[in-house]
Amino acid sequence: MIEIRDRVRFVETDMMGVVHHANYLRWFEMGRVAYLRAAGVELLNLMNDGYLFPITEVSCNYKNSARFDEEFVIRTTMLEFSKVKMTFGYRIVRTKDEMLLATGKTTNAFTNLEGRPTRLPISYYDKIACLYGQEEKGRKE
Amino acid sequence: MIEIRDRVRFVETDMMGVVHHANYLRWFEMGRVAYLRAAGVELLNLMNDGYLFPITEVSCNYKNSARFDEEFVIRTTMLEFSKVKMTFGYRIVRTKDEMLLATGKTTNAFTNLEGRPTRLPISYYDKIACLYGQEEKGRKE
Amino acid sequence: MIEIRDRVRFVETDMMGVVHHANYLRWFEMGRVAYLRAAGVELLNLMNDGYLFPITEVSCNYKNSARFDEEFVIRTTMLEFSKVKMTFGYRIVRTKDEMLLATGKTTNAFTNLEGRPTRLPISYYDKIACLYGQEEKGRKE
Amino acid sequence: MIEIRDRVRFVETDMMGVVHHANYLRWFEMGRVAYLRAAGVELLNLMNDGYLFPITEVSCNYKNSARFDEEFVIRTTMLEFSKVKMTFGYRIVRTKDEMLLATGKTTNAFTNLEGRPTRLPISYYDKIACLYGQEEKGRKE
Repeated sequence: MIEIRDRVRFVETDMMGVVHHANYLRWFEMGRVAYLRAAGVELLNLMNDGYLFPITEVSCNYKNSARFDEEFVIRTTMLEFSKVKMTFGYRIVRTKDEMLLATGKTTNAFTNLEGRPTRLPISYYDKIACLYGQEEKGRKE
Repeated sequence: MIEIRDRVRFVETDMMGVVHHANYLRWFEMGRVAYLRAAGVELLNLMNDGYLFPITEVSCNYKNSARFDEEFVIRTTMLEFSKVKMTFGYRIVRTKDEMLLATGKTTNAFTNLEGRPTRLPISYYDKIACLYGQEEKGRKE
Repeated sequence: MIEIRDRVRFVETDMMGVVHHANYLRWFEMGRVAYLRAAGVELLNLMNDGYLFPITEVSCNYKNSARFDEEFVIRTTMLEFSKVKMTFGYRIVRTKDEMLLATGKTTNAFTNLEGRPTRLPISYYDKIACLYGQEEKGRKE
Repeated sequence: MIEIRDRVRFVETDMMGVVHHANYLRWFEMGRVAYLRAAGVELLNLMNDGYLFPITEVSCNYKNSARFDEEFVIRTTMLEFSKVKMTFGYRIVRTKDEMLLATGKTTNAFTNLEGRPTRLPISYYDKIACLYGQEEKGRKE
């Protein structure tokens, strides 16, 4: 599980006085990028090598509202991984009291630059599989 | 089913060259607002009367990428409705060829200004129920 | 002067209850895109031909707050135009009472795909210059 | 001068492959919030006490493009300060090589909750004036 911390930006609020729900997808993305970076995979390299990773599915359950300036942590785990897609799970938690704000799940497919489904090359696959394997092992213990 | 049309904004794209997936939640919201307006309910009035409508669940399935400047239509239907929550379904379709871009679903709960669950008052309930009823009837025919 | 109309989206508001100031830059962009389209120039074609048009300067003066669901018009004129850059001026006006919400100005430079300054080719230049010339003529009369 | 660091989010890029220019206004806002926090002023308290601080002017000069995943620093100084408004200056700098990405300037007015211009109360004024005074002194030395 990879953790990153951030703070609610003013622009992320809406006129209900809380964070607009679409921003959680941005936070999930930050968690995903951090997870892949921890596995040694930079998305820029992936793109330069001709691979894209469009989102095919997103879901989010909102538990409690986040407010301006609150610190939160994004906890990202990988739920499923293969050469054709990867599914991540997320928990957004308010730092000061460990209040759960939202949980979510996303799936990315791997495609070539024309958007056609493709298989992740072994060099990238191995790096991600390694971190995923450690997580899996941790979950079983 | 309520339809509104719009056009992909440049700012809605990302470095993969297509619309960033978080923007579909913004489009769903536009569909929802249009649906409620068609039912005679203005969200500003609802808020002034002390009711909020936070999102509790969102899901989206991405079928095809949307690109800058493409025209699309947001088709919104109500899937479930009660005094405590409402669930909408959406289809985003590219205008020029009726290509399905994404489908989605959202649920709003009704709360008071302090965020506590509450029941929608009858005046609002009746208006929405009326449009929902017409839709339901249409679906059965 | 090219006009387009739109409506304030819920997501564009912030916790002060009005439109967040960064959204005006998105509206200016929509005005700019509409202006160029009116001149017969599609930004996608420009990019496919190897030209980018990064913003080098932006300014905005906020006169009155815009609120959720209000209809507004974006009035875009071209203030300066050459083969190396273009400067647009904008007025955002609330439809219902012609209240001025904001004025602004942006400059785009033309570059190649590597970001190096370049000159707009004559085919594009002529189209934009034609609309700009009509505007200039209109201003003098 | 108050510094905060962040990293370019994927969602902040656009189809030109670089950060969309509107995002710099979000970064300026983060700098402003950090500056006021350093002065001991929380915007939430200000709002709870009945004061708003709408932006009246923004300008930004873009020097070099920011790219996905790059780390940057936002350097915020206060340029002018009175009981009726405050003007901040910003420099956005890429961390790895101190490359200047953008400079900018914003002005906030103080208003009451109805949007009418008002004067900042002395308790808030003194805190901000204190940090501003230290900055001014530093600039003269």
